This record gives sequence, C-alpha cells and structure tokens, in this order.
Amino acid sequence: MKTKTLQKERDVIQQIYDLISEDLKKVEIEFKKNLHSDIFLIRKMGEYILGSGGKRVRPLLVLLSAKLCKYNGESHIPFAAIVEFIHTATLLHDDVVDEAELRRGKVSANVLWGNGASVLVGDFLYSKSFYLMIEHGDMEILKIMSKTTTQMSEGEILQLLKSNDPETTEGEYLEIVKNKTAILMSAACQTGAILGRVSREKQEAISNFGLNIGMAFQLTDDCLDYTSKNEELGKAVGNDLKEGKITLPLIHLLKNSTPDEKQEILKLIGQDDLNKSKLIYVINMINKYKSVDYAMAKAKRCVDEAKACLEIFEPSSERTALIGLADYVFERRF
Amino acid sequence: MKTKTLQKERDVIQQIYDLISEDLKKVEIEFKKNLHSDIFLIRKMGEYILGSGGKRVRPLLVLLSAKLCKYNGESHIPFAAIVEFIHTATLLHDDVVDEAELRRGKVSANVLWGNGASVLVGDFLYSKSFYLMIEHGDMEILKIMSKTTTQMSEGEILQLLKSNDPETTEGEYLEIVKNKTAILMSAACQTGAILGRVSREKQEAISNFGLNIGMAFQLTDDCLDYTSKNEELGKAVGNDLKEGKITLPLIHLLKNSTPDEKQEILKLIGQDDLNKSKLIYVINMINKYKSVDYAMAKAKRCVDEAKACLEIFEPSSERTALIGLADYVFERRF
Repeated sequence: MKTKTLQKERDVIQQIYDLISEDLKKVEIEFKKNLHSDIFLIRKMGEYILGSGGKRVRPLLVLLSAKLCKYNGESHIPFAAIVEFIHTATLLHDDVVDEAELRRGKVSANVLWGNGASVLVGDFLYSKSFYLMIEHGDMEILKIMSKTTTQMSEGEILQLLKSNDPETTEGEYLEIVKNKTAILMSAACQTGAILGRVSREKQEAISNFGLNIGMAFQLTDDCLDYTSKNEELGKAVGNDLKEGKITLPLIHLLKNSTPDEKQEILKLIGQDDLNKSKLIYVINMINKYKSVDYAMAKAKRCVDEAKACLEIFEPSSERTALIGLADYVFERRF
Repeated sequence: MKTKTLQKERDVIQQIYDLISEDLKKVEIEFKKNLHSDIFLIRKMGEYILGSGGKRVRPLLVLLSAKLCKYNGESHIPFAAIVEFIHTATLLHDDVVDEAELRRGKVSANVLWGNGASVLVGDFLYSKSFYLMIEHGDMEILKIMSKTTTQMSEGEILQLLKSNDPETTEGEYLEIVKNKTAILMSAACQTGAILGRVSREKQEAISNFGLNIGMAFQLTDDCLDYTSKNEELGKAVGNDLKEGKITLPLIHLLKNSTPDEKQEILKLIGQDDLNKSKLIYVINMINKYKSVDYAMAKAKRCVDEAKACLEIFEPSSERTALIGLADYVFERRF
C-alpha cells in the first residue's frame, strides 16, 4: 500500500519534470557553469550539495511560473539556477548553525570539509548569486531577491533564538516558517511572473501561490520529522526535537497535554541523547493529541489557498503542473 | 619615543577624520538606521562589532574618493556605510572560520553569542548591504561590489586551504591578500569615483590606489602580528603562527633559514599551545633573517605606488588626506 502511494507521488513529480525537462537540463548546465572558480574546493562542495538529491522545487517554481506567464525568453534558466544557489547557500550555513551531521541522507558538508569551508563556500554562493542577478540586470527581481535573502536571515536568526524555547507560540513559529522557507518560494514564483510581464494582480497571485506552498512545504517537513522513516526523509525521526527546534506538532502538543505529560516532554527538548523509548513516548503523545493532524490540516489549508491563487490564470499544462506540485508538497512522504 | 610615534600617528588619522567629520557622523547614523530589525540580537551584535574600535578605513576611502572626484550629492554616505557593513559581515564569518576568541582586543562575537549567531548575523549584513545598494540603484557600483564580494569569499577559501601549508608561495600569499583585503578597499575607492562621474582613467587610478593601500594594509597587519605588543593591536602576538596562517614574514623566513632552523619552525606552525620561549625563538629568527623588513619593504612599495596613483588628480585637501592615509597604513603600530 505504502509503496503504491510513493509510486503515485513519484509519478506526479515525474510528470512535472517531464513537462520542462529540457529547461531543467539547461538549469543543471547553468549550475556547473556558475560553480566555476580557480579554487577546486568550491566546485567540489558545490557539486556535492547540489547533487545530493534535492528535488529542485525552487527552480521548478521559477520555470513553471515563467511559462505560466507566457514568458518566451531564456532568462528563466539562469534565474532558476540562481534561486537554487541561494537555497544551497542557506543549506550550507544552516548545517553549521545546527551542527548537523546529515543532509538528505548523506554526510553533511560541514562534517566532510569543516565549518569554515561551509561558511565560506556558502558566502561564495550568495555573492555569486547576486553577481549573476546583477549581470542579468532586472532591477525588480533584484529588489525582491535582496529583500528576500535579508528576511531569510532574519527568519533563521529568530529560529535560533527560539530554539529550546517551549514558550514559542504558533504565531512565532509561522513567522519563522514564512521567512526561512516560504518567501524564497514566493520570490521564485514572482521572478517567473516578472519575466513574463504579467499584470500586478497576476504577479501577486503567483507570489501568493509560492508563499502558500512554501508554508505547506515546511509544515509538512516538520510533520515528517515526527512520522517518516529514516530512509525516506534521509534524516532521523525526532531530529527537530533533539535539536531543540520547536515546530508546530510540538507546540500543539505542549498546549494540549496534561501538566504531568507536559513536564515529561519539556525534559526531552534539545536532549542530544534522546533514546528510542523517549522518542516513542513523544510520538505516542503526538498521536494521542493528534498534533501532527493539526499541523497537517494547516498545511492542507495552505495548499488549498495556493491552488485558489491559480484560478486567475487560464488553464494550461503549466497551471496543471503547479496544482500537481502543490498537492505533491502536501502528500509527499519523503 | 614610542608614545610620541603613536601620538603622531593619531594626529595624522585625526586630521583626516576632522576633514570629513560631518560625513563620518552621518555614516554612523546610517549604521544605526540600517541595523534596524524586529530581531533585537541583530542590532545588539551589529552595534557590538561596529562599535569595537574599527578605524573606518573603508568608509573613509568612499568618502574621500567621492570628494576627491568632486561629488556633491549625498549617496556617498549610504555607500560608505554599506562598505563597512560588508567588511563587518566578513569579520563575523572570519571569526567563526578561525575559531577566534578576540577581535580588536574584545571578546569576539562568536564567543559571546555562538557560531550560529555569527554566521546568520553576517548573512543578514551581507544581504542587507545588497538590499541597500539595490535601493540606491547604481548598476555600475552593484557590478563592482558583487564581483568584489565573490572574489573576497574566494580569497578567504584559498586562505583556509593554504592554512598550515608551509609550501605556500609568496605569489599565493599575495593573491590571498589581494582578494581578502585589497579589493574591497579598491571597490570602496571606485565607488566614490563612480559617484563623482570622473573619467575612466581617473576611476582606474583611484581604484588602483585602493588596491595598493589594501595590500599595504594587510602586509603591515601581518608584520604587526610578529612585532606589536598585545595591547596595541588588540590581539596576541604570534596569533597567525598559532592559527597556521602562512604570511609573508614566515614565508620569507622558511625560504631563507637553514634546514635545521626550518625544521624547528615547521614544528611550530599551527601549534595551539605555542609557549613564550617558542614564540621568542621564531621572532629571533625573523629578526635574524630580516623577514619583517622584507615584508615591510613590499608594503612600502605598495604605499609609494598608491601615492603615485593620485598624481593624476589636482591638489586638494582630499588628495592630501588620502596620501596621509596611505602613510598611516604603513606607519601604524596599532
């Protein structure tokens, strides 16, 4: 049964890839070109993390939005690559901040090459992204992207400040999710719309679509952390709990559990040596109070809102693909 | 005698400050404005590092170059602040990379707030810098600055790769110095020139001035690491040696010492527990082979070259100040 579900999900995303496979190939070539440097380590680390099985959701959003908005040029290719570069830079830095050891099931770059290299190659990717954007010279896109990366760093800082803080509210959590994840997806979509020179109304609609699927994406991710199997997600279950990341399932649980249960759970937040029985205890509590269901219901509302944003566009294969992508974000199990 | 020299140096730099004190005050106000964020930690860390006694060399270069090039507007103020923001971001990240404990004689930010906060607040400053530059909308400056920050990260990565490598050549060292330090000073000068809309020839001259004083600045800094007193430089003598940073005095020494001496010195590179007697041994060797003199002679040539670059400009108080700054960079003892 589970295998069937996974197969269906893979079919959905595969259909989307197929629709713009030519463009996606060009984006991969663009990655290689832009990683060029006299310093071999940059290419090596860049290729390692870019080749580690990311699903290219952000490039997909740029490409599909551009096509949805009837863009006929070639600039969507470099911009799709740039958005993934920015995302990659944040991954490198996040792993230093979180002292992570795994990323997408592979040993993370900071473990392989050290924190210093991760910080500096991340800086290279950030700077190179701006360099490439400036080379393409679209002031509107530049404004959005620079605002976005600034807000992203604010989101990451807020997350850091709120780590291990059981008083974190749902509102604060949603603010973090918006900034650290959703606004880059929103900016990716808006980039496509700006290239396609559609009306302000359509630009806002597609940008809002991106924001909502970004929210759904992170909400689902945070639920998967309590539900998925290790081999599916490429990281250990309960990782957020161990790292002291207070995500929505946990916020809901803390709010709804009895004082005794709450006291038990509080002891486990940020505990590095969280053993299996303790983890099972938390997961049982989460099941008891339907905390994952609560968070997933929120994700579902974001997906529905995202899909509603697309109604302003006439039917097209790109619109269908974006709807499929929204469903995929919610339904994915890996 | 020493006190007199220090006083003279302070007089020189004070005269330069006095010349553009109004502008410098505005730059400080700009810092405060641009550090605004809903997240208090950003302001706190930003103010801590910006208020830790930096000499504002980069803002000075923007302001003096703009005035030298007869710029009459107000944009040199935000650009002066932006260049210092970029510099501050690199300091935050460098301290994570170097695992530094001191910066300008104060406990470094990574020690106070952790590596994670330093990485992320550095990212905020980078992003905000680009955001502010884009707001001011000068494409030529944007191109230069984005190219500069990309090259800076490459310089930092090369430095990291070459750390503890006694085979590092003088050429590689100079390449690192150019990228990690000199090109930002060059870009600072060029920014002023672009604002002043001078001829391409003058733009190149002032940019070359910045490059040369940047080289001299770093060369002098690397010499001070072997000669200064702790309280003057705000960091321990022999710090580079301990950290495994192979700078020109050491490269010269390794090249010129006897095989036995070389073997002794090699043992001390990157040694965290470098005691006083070992340090004195290295410093004696450096004196014996005049390795600091060798590096300082190179710095002097850069200063002379820098000053020669200014001949294309007619005499003005700004030109005099820039010449004074070039001398200061070479003569400073703190």
